[in-house]
Amino acid sequence: MMGASTRKGEEIAEKSRKIIKKLIRDKIEGLSPEESAIIERIVHSTADPEYADITKMSQDFIPSTIDALWGLKDILVDVEMVKVGISYDGEVKCYINHPSVIRMAKDKNMTRAAAAMEYAASKGFSGVVVVGNAPTALLKLIKLAKAGMDVNSIIGVPVGFVGAAESKKLLTKTDIPYLITSGPKGGTPVAVAATNALINLAKKRGGII
Amino acid sequence: MMGASTRKGEEIAEKSRKIIKKLIRDKIEGLSPEESAIIERIVHSTADPEYADITKMSQDFIPSTIDALWGLKDILVDVEMVKVGISYDGEVKCYINHPSVIRMAKDKNMTRAAAAMEYAASKGFSGVVVVGNAPTALLKLIKLAKAGMDVNSIIGVPVGFVGAAESKKLLTKTDIPYLITSGPKGGTPVAVAATNALINLAKKRGGII
Repeated sequence: MMGASTRKGEEIAEKSRKIIKKLIRDKIEGLSPEESAIIERIVHSTADPEYADITKMSQDFIPSTIDALWGLKDILVDVEMVKVGISYDGEVKCYINHPSVIRMAKDKNMTRAAAAMEYAASKGFSGVVVVGNAPTALLKLIKLAKAGMDVNSIIGVPVGFVGAAESKKLLTKTDIPYLITSGPKGGTPVAVAATNALINLAKKRGGII
Repeated sequence: MMGASTRKGEEIAEKSRKIIKKLIRDKIEGLSPEESAIIERIVHSTADPEYADITKMSQDFIPSTIDALWGLKDILVDVEMVKVGISYDGEVKCYINHPSVIRMAKDKNMTRAAAAMEYAASKGFSGVVVVGNAPTALLKLIKLAKAGMDVNSIIGVPVGFVGAAESKKLLTKTDIPYLITSGPKGGTPVAVAATNALINLAKKRGGII
């Protein structure tokens, strides 16, 4: 639960869960248990109840993502910090430090995060994509998915005052199953919390936990 | 600047910097250029201007930390996500996944993050400590420093509703140079942003950038 691995850690996580439930009770009324679990975990990892207001999912997001994660399909992430935080029995891919990506970014004057998405598509990526930092990666990903990249769902929570809000809004206009945080906020802990919550939901469905 | 490594990335970072300067202008009035640089970087990486209100540093924090980082002293961090985000020419140590730490946490019923601090102290750690997640690590660290662990400064920004605010408040009552975020908020991006901003300040003082 919540990434705790010792008895002491579990006690703290349980206490935190109770406080969060109280704090965001009104905001998660009417949501499914799965939606609530995801949002609680995001609020737990940010200590910021505003995430209960700004986290939005498309209707097909939870089933699509759980299907893919239960099938241990690959997860593609934008940056190493997000990769390190995810606990998954399948593969988590991150290409931002790949030599071909660094070269492509310089040659095409794109960010490395965007080039990493293009590289993944060129390698035939198929699975769930998590963008926790770079709006440019999310914009590129939307284009690639429209052009046929096999994306089961996108956890799109880039952060920042330049392009993040716009990139997330654009994602909601596509037919790709999505989770976003409206506005400039988001980031690594939000991306990691949402992904790990969904991995747990997939395991629960599979009867593993 | 701000971790960007391509021309495209630098353009975005520059635009972001201007927006942030406007957003928090009133809040950083009267701060030194070094303090402002640290706070701007935290707001950049969280897209949350509230960090300009809640980030607090002791008077000796910036000189102590810059001295240590300019001397390439070790940095100790609580979790791997923080380690991955830091760009440093010195060593960044993280013991949370060390077999001895995992054993110690179980035997003594502590969190792994706290056990990792005890392990570092037992190995004669000397340098700057960054706690981005676990209040239990910060509490343990304060005890260890009082008992003689050689800590140049602490970036103490654990996150959460259980113990985070209290642990940070306790840090401000010690004579250890500190940076904290008051209240429950904090986390990996805050820890990474503050640390990288200070590494840049150390390099600037050294004439490297």
